[in-house]
Amino acid sequence: MAAKVGIIMGSDSDLPIMSKAAEILDLLKVEYDMTVISAHRMPDVFFDYAKSAEEKGYKVIIAGAGGAAHLPGMSAAIFPMPVIGVPIMTKALGGVDSLYSIVQMPSGIPVATVAINGALNAGLLAAKILAVSDPDLLERIKAYAASLKDGVSAKAEKLEKLGYEAYMKEMN
Amino acid sequence: MAAKVGIIMGSDSDLPIMSKAAEILDLLKVEYDMTVISAHRMPDVFFDYAKSAEEKGYKVIIAGAGGAAHLPGMSAAIFPMPVIGVPIMTKALGGVDSLYSIVQMPSGIPVATVAINGALNAGLLAAKILAVSDPDLLERIKAYAASLKDGVSAKAEKLEKLGYEAYMKEMN
Amino acid sequence: MAAKVGIIMGSDSDLPIMSKAAEILDLLKVEYDMTVISAHRMPDVFFDYAKSAEEKGYKVIIAGAGGAAHLPGMSAAIFPMPVIGVPIMTKALGGVDSLYSIVQMPSGIPVATVAINGALNAGLLAAKILAVSDPDLLERIKAYAASLKDGVSAKAEKLEKLGYEAYMKEMN
Amino acid sequence: MAAKVGIIMGSDSDLPIMSKAAEILDLLKVEYDMTVISAHRMPDVFFDYAKSAEEKGYKVIIAGAGGAAHLPGMSAAIFPMPVIGVPIMTKALGGVDSLYSIVQMPSGIPVATVAINGALNAGLLAAKILAVSDPDLLERIKAYAASLKDGVSAKAEKLEKLGYEAYMKEMN
Amino acid sequence: MAAKVGIIMGSDSDLPIMSKAAEILDLLKVEYDMTVISAHRMPDVFFDYAKSAEEKGYKVIIAGAGGAAHLPGMSAAIFPMPVIGVPIMTKALGGVDSLYSIVQMPSGIPVATVAINGALNAGLLAAKILAVSDPDLLERIKAYAASLKDGVSAKAEKLEKLGYEAYMKEMN
Amino acid sequence: MAAKVGIIMGSDSDLPIMSKAAEILDLLKVEYDMTVISAHRMPDVFFDYAKSAEEKGYKVIIAGAGGAAHLPGMSAAIFPMPVIGVPIMTKALGGVDSLYSIVQMPSGIPVATVAINGALNAGLLAAKILAVSDPDLLERIKAYAASLKDGVSAKAEKLEKLGYEAYMKEMN
Amino acid sequence: MAAKVGIIMGSDSDLPIMSKAAEILDLLKVEYDMTVISAHRMPDVFFDYAKSAEEKGYKVIIAGAGGAAHLPGMSAAIFPMPVIGVPIMTKALGGVDSLYSIVQMPSGIPVATVAINGALNAGLLAAKILAVSDPDLLERIKAYAASLKDGVSAKAEKLEKLGYEAYMKEMN
Amino acid sequence: MAAKVGIIMGSDSDLPIMSKAAEILDLLKVEYDMTVISAHRMPDVFFDYAKSAEEKGYKVIIAGAGGAAHLPGMSAAIFPMPVIGVPIMTKALGGVDSLYSIVQMPSGIPVATVAINGALNAGLLAAKILAVSDPDLLERIKAYAASLKDGVSAKAEKLEKLGYEAYMKEMN
Repeated sequence: MAAKVGIIMGSDSDLPIMSKAAEILDLLKVEYDMTVISAHRMPDVFFDYAKSAEEKGYKVIIAGAGGAAHLPGMSAAIFPMPVIGVPIMTKALGGVDSLYSIVQMPSGIPVATVAINGALNAGLLAAKILAVSDPDLLERIKAYAASLKDGVSAKAEKLEKLGYEAYMKEMN
Repeated sequence: MAAKVGIIMGSDSDLPIMSKAAEILDLLKVEYDMTVISAHRMPDVFFDYAKSAEEKGYKVIIAGAGGAAHLPGMSAAIFPMPVIGVPIMTKALGGVDSLYSIVQMPSGIPVATVAINGALNAGLLAAKILAVSDPDLLERIKAYAASLKDGVSAKAEKLEKLGYEAYMKEMN
Repeated sequence: MAAKVGIIMGSDSDLPIMSKAAEILDLLKVEYDMTVISAHRMPDVFFDYAKSAEEKGYKVIIAGAGGAAHLPGMSAAIFPMPVIGVPIMTKALGGVDSLYSIVQMPSGIPVATVAINGALNAGLLAAKILAVSDPDLLERIKAYAASLKDGVSAKAEKLEKLGYEAYMKEMN
Repeated sequence: MAAKVGIIMGSDSDLPIMSKAAEILDLLKVEYDMTVISAHRMPDVFFDYAKSAEEKGYKVIIAGAGGAAHLPGMSAAIFPMPVIGVPIMTKALGGVDSLYSIVQMPSGIPVATVAINGALNAGLLAAKILAVSDPDLLERIKAYAASLKDGVSAKAEKLEKLGYEAYMKEMN
Repeated sequence: MAAKVGIIMGSDSDLPIMSKAAEILDLLKVEYDMTVISAHRMPDVFFDYAKSAEEKGYKVIIAGAGGAAHLPGMSAAIFPMPVIGVPIMTKALGGVDSLYSIVQMPSGIPVATVAINGALNAGLLAAKILAVSDPDLLERIKAYAASLKDGVSAKAEKLEKLGYEAYMKEMN
Repeated sequence: MAAKVGIIMGSDSDLPIMSKAAEILDLLKVEYDMTVISAHRMPDVFFDYAKSAEEKGYKVIIAGAGGAAHLPGMSAAIFPMPVIGVPIMTKALGGVDSLYSIVQMPSGIPVATVAINGALNAGLLAAKILAVSDPDLLERIKAYAASLKDGVSAKAEKLEKLGYEAYMKEMN
Repeated sequence: MAAKVGIIMGSDSDLPIMSKAAEILDLLKVEYDMTVISAHRMPDVFFDYAKSAEEKGYKVIIAGAGGAAHLPGMSAAIFPMPVIGVPIMTKALGGVDSLYSIVQMPSGIPVATVAINGALNAGLLAAKILAVSDPDLLERIKAYAASLKDGVSAKAEKLEKLGYEAYMKEMN
Repeated sequence: MAAKVGIIMGSDSDLPIMSKAAEILDLLKVEYDMTVISAHRMPDVFFDYAKSAEEKGYKVIIAGAGGAAHLPGMSAAIFPMPVIGVPIMTKALGGVDSLYSIVQMPSGIPVATVAINGALNAGLLAAKILAVSDPDLLERIKAYAASLKDGVSAKAEKLEKLGYEAYMKEMN
């Protein structure tokens, strides 16, 4: 089956963050392709990628970038279906530069922006977008949400039972 | 046909902004419901809304809120399909408070955030999400994008023809 | 005697900070319960908690959360007595996101916000709120304040006696 | 009956904002005193005020100030019961200066901070603090919360009935 | 003679600002072309523009844009000679979003960024770049700088002569 | 008697703010000179001014500037006695740019920075610096402080007497 | 001879920074006292300190504090001669909170603010203030400035001689 | 051949960053001089440098500085050809102070500002400015851009071949 999600990032230094998008898509059994592509360093390659993305069968593009982050917005300028932007944290400005460069798009070219370094949520959002027309995927998403809830419940029970001092000792 | 998009806002003072989401959905012939609902002032009503949204047939929720804006994130905590958040501009902080309250969601509960006051883009993003499985809608979205391009082209031609001084006189 | 203060946090990673609220309440002999509860990952559990809090005898809720921090504000939307919010420091934005998400509440739903990571002050503020109708607790709070003053006085004396170079050597 | 809440502000230019605290306390039938007092321009008068506040019967102090806003924090340094701080919006920095000067208090001296210009919420929070030991006041607070909810419900109904275009026309 | 400077902007709403670049180039007798071109709304047109710019004889491109401002950076990704970016002031964030989106470029793709709304300086900088190999233009630039100095000197003399009260009366 | 304070500003558009420094010095009977001088547009004139300032008898320089505000810091690089910097409010960034450009000086070249648009305080600070060795001036400063206190006291009395509603009516 | 400068700080954790003020005053042979004093934890002690400071012979007070930093401003409210404020860097907000709390003082109560952690400059500024009426001290300040210049000149020469690669190797 | 680019920095602590400008100029075979020069600590030396720069044959100056960074702007006030400013990252404010001090220049004195710590781009921009009249240099710049593209392409291929897990293992 053809991949439905394209994951791209401006630099391989973003991979430790962006791989979280791949992991959640793996978990939710959503096919994806992932590559490094720089709108700045290889504009032609990027243009070809974005222009052919619909034809290749992508339904959603997830783009991560940091600093003056143009990859998500430029993808959204070319690809007609949803583009999700992941602002990568930066050393000097903490990622506010990435966030503003991605979220403050002009009318007509939306980028669905998630939190700074929020690649897991980007993957999950891509899955939710596909789940609009895929009831089985929606069930898997609900099961994932239930597992998150169970995780917190278990921690709550443990904290109530052990007390905070014992709990914190175990954290270390 | 049942509405596929639910548009909610925390206060009717957000309506002049949020109505832009409705306008673009009207243009793209996407059915929607729109109401005022406050997660803070009527948490029970809000909970019922969010819980029954899937059953009612909504595929996407667009939530606009300002300041400590919890409506989009709390919707995403309950509704399993995509939630789009619109940070409303605020008087004191320009909407940075709204933006941070909406975009900085924890792992597992994404909100697809658009620009401050970016309600038009929220509506368009909702349409793009639905267009993933609706080729006719996708065509209408492409036609809309083409019309934006034509609009800029016309302005470019006019500016090149008139020169900036004459063009600016006509702007006033 | 029933606990008068409920301490909640969105994630157990907040515990090293939030435990400072418990410590000061221990010192001031104020009963409290503490648990992990996520408004985002377990909205139903959270709603039950907030709705039953008055009945359980809580007079104050202390809620700590980071990023798009909705736990304090949503608690204040449901629980009718004072809610104290603790913005947790975040890696990317230093906790400005948490602070804005907690303090910028709309009219009608106040959250008593303390400093970023200010959980000790949250516990102390809860005690001060209870001390409004508990003269013995008020005395204990005054004694605590006196001890803080004595601590600074001792340091001042030592610095004046040793000089800054010797004092700084002892600090290491 | 003696006033239980003292409302102070650094300048009479803060009165249009700070009067909202008085209005909600009037509505909730809570006695208060209100005056202008400057920690900077009349430190002696301020010290006397803060030191005698407990004796005069105040249970809560609400202090509003803008810029390098020291009034709330200095009140909290002297008065042993809860102090609520209202950061006043400023022309140059929007009130971020006021907010940081009030909320970022050191350990041991909490100020219960509300939103920028959030004087209504300050008054309501003072009432909630008093309601911890005043069941009748708690009922009045609940009734006020219900009225807020009804206000939003009425707007929601009207919007659903009229549609957004008609609703917006009526807004003007 | 072919134009040496291309001035582009993302929207004609930027024209009142961007026209300042044209005015100073007119004054300094530097040939330029000016048009509206949107990297987001007409990516193909933009790509053709940027790719053919060298061939057309442009030596410098001045690009103004606001919000998630990608026009300057994408121009710099394609055009091999200097690109000057003008961050346009925005309503919500004052232009910090535009500034970060333009200045925080990754290694290898510099954009020479000027102040928010600093289009006059962008034009002057373009002239200075051309003046590196055009001594006559350099002389005109020096004459312009001298005229600025004379302007301030005249004001200084007037202020020293009239005193501030009379001077301010004349300002109104 | 020679003027002891030199007041300079980067542009005559700063005069409505900077004149407040002159007014308070007039009130406190401190001699000053005031002129417009641009470190950027007339660096030679500025250098001569700063270098000859000690010889002319200035004991303090007050420098106001906005944006990338270099006038105060460059004055402090040349003039060996105290330099007071006034950050002028800016349209795009509210004066944070001016503030950072003035206050964040490197070791060895202090600028005594006051609030954004705080020219009155700059004048008063200059007077306080001179009052260190001028007991009569110190008395005039104390009298001014007393008058500020009386002003607030009068407002406090009026507010306590009239109530806030009547007081606010009179404000309009 | 009595000390002319009082150095105070809100906490002994500020000593490693504030000691730089003492060091430069030692170097310039200016007498000072230094102690820890908390406006928040010991308001009475602080008030006595500030009130008696003139009588004790202080001509300048240097006050360092972090977060909601009230020590400099409250000192300036009581002590009639110059007060210099040192904003201490903070973990969450980098010291912007300290800076705003110190610099944004209202009309009538100036604080001469230096850079975040700029205690050396605070000491130097205090010396410059005293040097207004002490020609010998002024000479020592000029000699110190000359030594700074010589330090940079030596580095410049070395860099020009060695080249950057060799220079950087020696730095490690 | 005389150097065409002058690289200056306010302190040798900036050298590890500023050396990147030298490295790229070395790579592109552009002659440059590099030294340490402080506008604040040695204003006379700085003035001589800036005034004689044109005569010495410099065509571009690259100036790096941090905090209240005046070196780039003051260079631009004196040197008539392009000045490129590099904002150096700072500990407290991440370099926002440096950025604002450099980029927010008034009309008439542009500084071509690059990213925080963006010295490599400053060097590359200087080369692009010279390449406007040097076709051979332009070819070398294009070859450098091609090498950047090839670098990303190689990484993309490797990631597509290895998958993200294997790729990330090799990164460590």
